[in-house]
Amino acid sequence: MSLSLDFTNMMGAALPHGAGITAAQLTDASDAFAKAHAHVHAMQAELGFLTLPVNEALRDATLAVAEQTRGRFDDVLLLGIGGSALGPIALRTALRPPAWNTLSADARGGHPRLHVLDNVDPATIAATLARLDLSRTLVLVISKSGGTVETMAQYLIVREALARAVGEDAARQHLVFITDPEVGALRKIARAEGITTLEVPPNVGGRFSVLSPVGMLPAALIGIDVKALLAGAADVMTRAASADLATNLPGTFAVLQHIADTAHGRSVQVLMPYADPLRDLALWFVQLWAESLGKLRSDGTPVGPTPLPAVGATDQHSQVQLFMEGPLDKTVTFITVKGRERDGMIPTRHADIPELSYLAGHTLGELIDIEQRATAGALAARGRFNATLAIDTVDAFHLGALMQTFALATAYAGVLYEVNAFNQPGVELGKNFAYAMLGRAGSEQARAEWDALPKPDPRYRV
Amino acid sequence: MSLSLDFTNMMGAALPHGAGITAAQLTDASDAFAKAHAHVHAMQAELGFLTLPVNEALRDATLAVAEQTRGRFDDVLLLGIGGSALGPIALRTALRPPAWNTLSADARGGHPRLHVLDNVDPATIAATLARLDLSRTLVLVISKSGGTVETMAQYLIVREALARAVGEDAARQHLVFITDPEVGALRKIARAEGITTLEVPPNVGGRFSVLSPVGMLPAALIGIDVKALLAGAADVMTRAASADLATNLPGTFAVLQHIADTAHGRSVQVLMPYADPLRDLALWFVQLWAESLGKLRSDGTPVGPTPLPAVGATDQHSQVQLFMEGPLDKTVTFITVKGRERDGMIPTRHADIPELSYLAGHTLGELIDIEQRATAGALAARGRFNATLAIDTVDAFHLGALMQTFALATAYAGVLYEVNAFNQPGVELGKNFAYAMLGRAGSEQARAEWDALPKPDPRYRV
Repeated sequence: MSLSLDFTNMMGAALPHGAGITAAQLTDASDAFAKAHAHVHAMQAELGFLTLPVNEALRDATLAVAEQTRGRFDDVLLLGIGGSALGPIALRTALRPPAWNTLSADARGGHPRLHVLDNVDPATIAATLARLDLSRTLVLVISKSGGTVETMAQYLIVREALARAVGEDAARQHLVFITDPEVGALRKIARAEGITTLEVPPNVGGRFSVLSPVGMLPAALIGIDVKALLAGAADVMTRAASADLATNLPGTFAVLQHIADTAHGRSVQVLMPYADPLRDLALWFVQLWAESLGKLRSDGTPVGPTPLPAVGATDQHSQVQLFMEGPLDKTVTFITVKGRERDGMIPTRHADIPELSYLAGHTLGELIDIEQRATAGALAARGRFNATLAIDTVDAFHLGALMQTFALATAYAGVLYEVNAFNQPGVELGKNFAYAMLGRAGSEQARAEWDALPKPDPRYRV
Repeated sequence: MSLSLDFTNMMGAALPHGAGITAAQLTDASDAFAKAHAHVHAMQAELGFLTLPVNEALRDATLAVAEQTRGRFDDVLLLGIGGSALGPIALRTALRPPAWNTLSADARGGHPRLHVLDNVDPATIAATLARLDLSRTLVLVISKSGGTVETMAQYLIVREALARAVGEDAARQHLVFITDPEVGALRKIARAEGITTLEVPPNVGGRFSVLSPVGMLPAALIGIDVKALLAGAADVMTRAASADLATNLPGTFAVLQHIADTAHGRSVQVLMPYADPLRDLALWFVQLWAESLGKLRSDGTPVGPTPLPAVGATDQHSQVQLFMEGPLDKTVTFITVKGRERDGMIPTRHADIPELSYLAGHTLGELIDIEQRATAGALAARGRFNATLAIDTVDAFHLGALMQTFALATAYAGVLYEVNAFNQPGVELGKNFAYAMLGRAGSEQARAEWDALPKPDPRYRV
């Protein structure tokens, strides 16, 4: 078993005054889960992420593009935002050595660095272009729709810089677009100019796209084992075939978080890996959980848990005070990694100083694991819901498994919350206001709505 | 005026159905604030952070240590956790070019790289030590108490590696300790071995220590203008001398967030800079706000808002869907930067493609600002509380001002919430459980309590 979830500390039996989830609540949820399971797994045509792990054609197309570029580039510059950036960043942090971009080419095994531009701050783009040798840089432009405003703006600037650096014709050899197979601006440009493209299947939403070329191409370029990632995800799909809650890990995660929120007021849901390589996985999860479940239900009720990223042991010195003593409105899901007990031996020194001597002979691996268990126990002792997701090791197989676990849990949770987990209607208004201010054609109605908003009131300014 | 806060969109007048803070609530809060102000500013002896901006002796001692090391080191390795790490990281990200550690020595103006080890993951430390040339590395060991378990464990490992690399005697010349002037293990070692130290004043808590040597030494080493940082903070102290809420920016921030939480259920408080350099400032703020205010009140009531970090425009493609349509339980405080309108000109290209042509002639600076205003307006239109903190530019003066603003706001908020903002009793239980498992002398009682906790229940495992 590669993944396991211990949720003893979510249950009333383990918490003071029995104030946790009851065995009856869990039993009652089994039926609801069985329906959610049937609903989700019947939607293979609409939910492309379910079959990405076994989409060999897409995988092979991705690997072929990676192969074509081998040895030609020292740097990969990824232009993308949201789901187009968070997955690749999470994979780089988890599966490459720390500070990858500072390592020598040798230490990188000849693979390129990977830089991600996921914002439109002018200072960042200027500094990034100033430090890259564009003649040795491959630029990935990733936008599902092919028209994301931030990514298009980045693209126009980077394309111009590339053309200046290597010439208009050669610039095309430095570009790969990852976008919809048919529609959108990027597809149009690619067709007109013969730029290499990979597709995001139309039935795969941005935040569910990490196992499509969106995540797989950057991963392959920097030497991550893409086949192992997909195998880990495929393994999760096999295990999740059963609608029996007692054996379905993603389902259990979804059901527990849903009950904790809706029946126990635990609406802030912390994901807290005790492992540096998984720091950015928590940020990837935040988008997945927040953007999928934070919705107006069809009756107009606003619902959805608030995911909160953390990292252990670091956050024991930041957020854990709040988790321990603040309002009883949170769950904490730890992620732990097995097999580190012998890593990072702490040497004997200053044996006369009690604050240090007790550490000698222990390892950092022991310490980080002990701290996680201590924090979990302390939270439970204070009535704070928590669960521990354990993986055997941080490798491509387990990353693929973790990501597919959370993606599947999100789909189940959408059914439990009675929302559409696969759209994001809430961001349209702000987008339209921005279009109006930028003078984009067709945004006259948004302009009128914008102009009608209350203006900054000088009384409410300090 | 270097900083301003527009809170129109927190107030009922700007929100649908008037469902915001009322003018009467704000007026009523003036008296409570005046008391909080008097209380905080009367505690200069206890609250050392109030006078850090004008502590010239401490500043000069810090600059002298920085001067002594000039030219001797290519890398600075900081060992610290929580307040000992978050401030230095936030300063590096804000005030040095992006990807500082990847730049050449020339591009760094001859200043060293800065690596921060803020966790005890054995994989991270091993990789960090493997890539550094310790003969050219200065190691800062930062612990207020001088005995923080994670930092002591890091220190023992790094000290051993240093001794192997440069010899026992020379190793001492590669170390600076920043710790309490009298007590703790680090102070003892420094005295015994003649290691250079700087002090954290005993009346300055870890999360309020960024303007002490904790933040100032790393900042000075990498070429940040420490005097300007302190000047910005001093400016905030001058402006905050008045107890008049209408002119006190930190007070207004504290009061608004407190009312939003306690009277309107807006308990999740987002800090969302629209500027890449301020990404890590949000994480620094999270510790400050969470660890100071997440407390049991003396009557046993758990209180405290939950800070949530975000960054714009990036999070428009992640968390903003939840902020717009999820539960009405959040406030969003934007940070914007003036004067970027002409930065990052977007060139004309693909003028025949409507998704791109409307961008030509605009700049990234315009785009990021327009997106911020659009998001603020959209949130308000949907009844979501938000405010905008504007700074003139991202420089040392404004960073000092921002940090002192938030520190002061936190102190005021502690009074409003009726908690002690300067302790962290909630983390003791977990710490003691960890000591017990590590076999530290004196932890027998914690061991007994730990052993009495419910064990993992195989029924609650999948």
